[in-house]
Amino acid sequence: MTTPMNQQMLLVSRPSAEPTPANFKLVQTAIPALADGEVLVRHHYLSLDPYMRGRMNEGKNYAAPQPLNAVMIGGTVGEVVQSRHERFQVGDRVVGSGGWQLYSVVQAGQPGTLRKVDTTRVLLSAYLGAVGMPGVTAWYGLTQIIEPKAGETIVVSAASGAVGGVVGQLAKARGCRAVGIAGGREKCDYVVRELGFDRCIDYKAMKSVDMLSAALAEACPQGIDGHFENVGGIILDSVMQRANAFARIAMCGMIAGYNGEPIPLAEPRLILTSRMKVQGFIVSEHMQLWPQALAELADRVGNGSLKYRETVAEGLEDAPEAFIGLLKGRNFGKQLVKLV
Amino acid sequence: MTTPMNQQMLLVSRPSAEPTPANFKLVQTAIPALADGEVLVRHHYLSLDPYMRGRMNEGKNYAAPQPLNAVMIGGTVGEVVQSRHERFQVGDRVVGSGGWQLYSVVQAGQPGTLRKVDTTRVLLSAYLGAVGMPGVTAWYGLTQIIEPKAGETIVVSAASGAVGGVVGQLAKARGCRAVGIAGGREKCDYVVRELGFDRCIDYKAMKSVDMLSAALAEACPQGIDGHFENVGGIILDSVMQRANAFARIAMCGMIAGYNGEPIPLAEPRLILTSRMKVQGFIVSEHMQLWPQALAELADRVGNGSLKYRETVAEGLEDAPEAFIGLLKGRNFGKQLVKLV
Repeated sequence: MTTPMNQQMLLVSRPSAEPTPANFKLVQTAIPALADGEVLVRHHYLSLDPYMRGRMNEGKNYAAPQPLNAVMIGGTVGEVVQSRHERFQVGDRVVGSGGWQLYSVVQAGQPGTLRKVDTTRVLLSAYLGAVGMPGVTAWYGLTQIIEPKAGETIVVSAASGAVGGVVGQLAKARGCRAVGIAGGREKCDYVVRELGFDRCIDYKAMKSVDMLSAALAEACPQGIDGHFENVGGIILDSVMQRANAFARIAMCGMIAGYNGEPIPLAEPRLILTSRMKVQGFIVSEHMQLWPQALAELADRVGNGSLKYRETVAEGLEDAPEAFIGLLKGRNFGKQLVKLV
Repeated sequence: MTTPMNQQMLLVSRPSAEPTPANFKLVQTAIPALADGEVLVRHHYLSLDPYMRGRMNEGKNYAAPQPLNAVMIGGTVGEVVQSRHERFQVGDRVVGSGGWQLYSVVQAGQPGTLRKVDTTRVLLSAYLGAVGMPGVTAWYGLTQIIEPKAGETIVVSAASGAVGGVVGQLAKARGCRAVGIAGGREKCDYVVRELGFDRCIDYKAMKSVDMLSAALAEACPQGIDGHFENVGGIILDSVMQRANAFARIAMCGMIAGYNGEPIPLAEPRLILTSRMKVQGFIVSEHMQLWPQALAELADRVGNGSLKYRETVAEGLEDAPEAFIGLLKGRNFGKQLVKLV
């Protein structure tokens, strides 16, 4: 058979603040012949996620920085088109970390590199969202850090996003009051009407900590027991003002500070006076819990009780603009790039 | 017998920033006759503690504010001088919360009000320090929040104080490297030479987060795994810069911010990138653990392996000045007021 050409999106320079298209470069490369144990995957969708912005910096982060002049990292779903590994057949649907490119060659025997998925009840793209890393992120922060009890009030920022939407729906399923924070009327309407949150606050209509704090007080008459933070900045400051004693805050993202100077926390003393727990996490460090999380998420998506939305860019060449838009909140739900 | 007159120190106005002697008023009052079940305690020592500053404010805090024109709250040790409760005899040494006064009438049957103590191996005053609330505070934050493992590096601020000194010594006993932060050369020498910490950093010699962060890097070559925070401000900021992945920070006090505007936390994003846990606590909410903590503390003080130091003011009239000095770090070790 004729092996096709690959296309790859490289990071060629590090953004100083907001990324621009000039930080990326699209190249054509040949696909090497497979060695024993390798699999060639054709990517159907590429996942775009806020954590990628952190990897573009050279400084301290969860993981090593994205190298320059290398294919941008990223989660992918696709199909096996060639296989020299006994467990994978041509046509298998798989999820992996193929990066920003049309094809990837995977050493399929290494644990965690490639996983076959069942697309009878869950669409392939959902394995990058509600039944993938974002869904497990939501599940982990909620169940392992916030540990919600029925009747408690749980707040989540970026509530219409791939992670936030799952947090609120899982909280509702556990008998909690779920209150979202999202940017714009349309997203807030979706969060309440489609996802079933009790309330959603449009932070774009709030110009100060005081306004946001007042809106939270109104939306959370019993105070806040748990918070899932995807944004930071004045959202975190105002949530802390409304936190009950023994509130738990899961720190998942601080997208507000990804592009520039560190954003301070206004009143750390509240951690003490309200005896809060504030804890950061990264879901890839807790792989032992993924099977349990994915089982619940697949079940809920399969039976229709866990809903999600996708924004889909078309073609690898549009990935940089879609990623820049994601950091600005222009997406609605999970941001994907369709490659097939 | 002739009942003596009592002297009481009242809070008569709320400090706007630093407390001043004018916020307090000394009054003479009669001691009422005892009802059934009551005990009259003559206080030997009054404990002065940073938490009292928080109670002087009207705003949100752990507990209800100290009422105006009432006796200031506070821990006391003393002796029973009259008793109408079967479990207490004249001459018993007791620890309680008698407040800033020479005598207190206690309904001794209520749990947690009055506890008999053994002064054969532990001096009476230590029940206000290393074998009292400050010691249990150190024990709780270290063992229940920081959960140190042998070989880890534990940092504590206000290291020469009643709480901090115990934190470091208990950490050493658990096989950790203990690094203190204290104000001034003399306190730092004491922390290393007398208390046995590995290192102590003089924060008064450090004028910026960068300087303190560099000193911490030098004193903690393996980074920081656990931190016990009594101070806040730039100390907390610089510790967070040097924290290892999965570091635990026990938030016990933020004396740096007690007197004025909230002090922000410079880089909350580090909680996320270093997957830290930052948790506030107040030891009186964990009474079920006090017996276990007090047993270890009394044992270590009794056998000489847990050391402490006291600064003793003389007479109730000197309590306000001693308290103001405590907030400025003028004390050295546990601040007491001797009343007998």
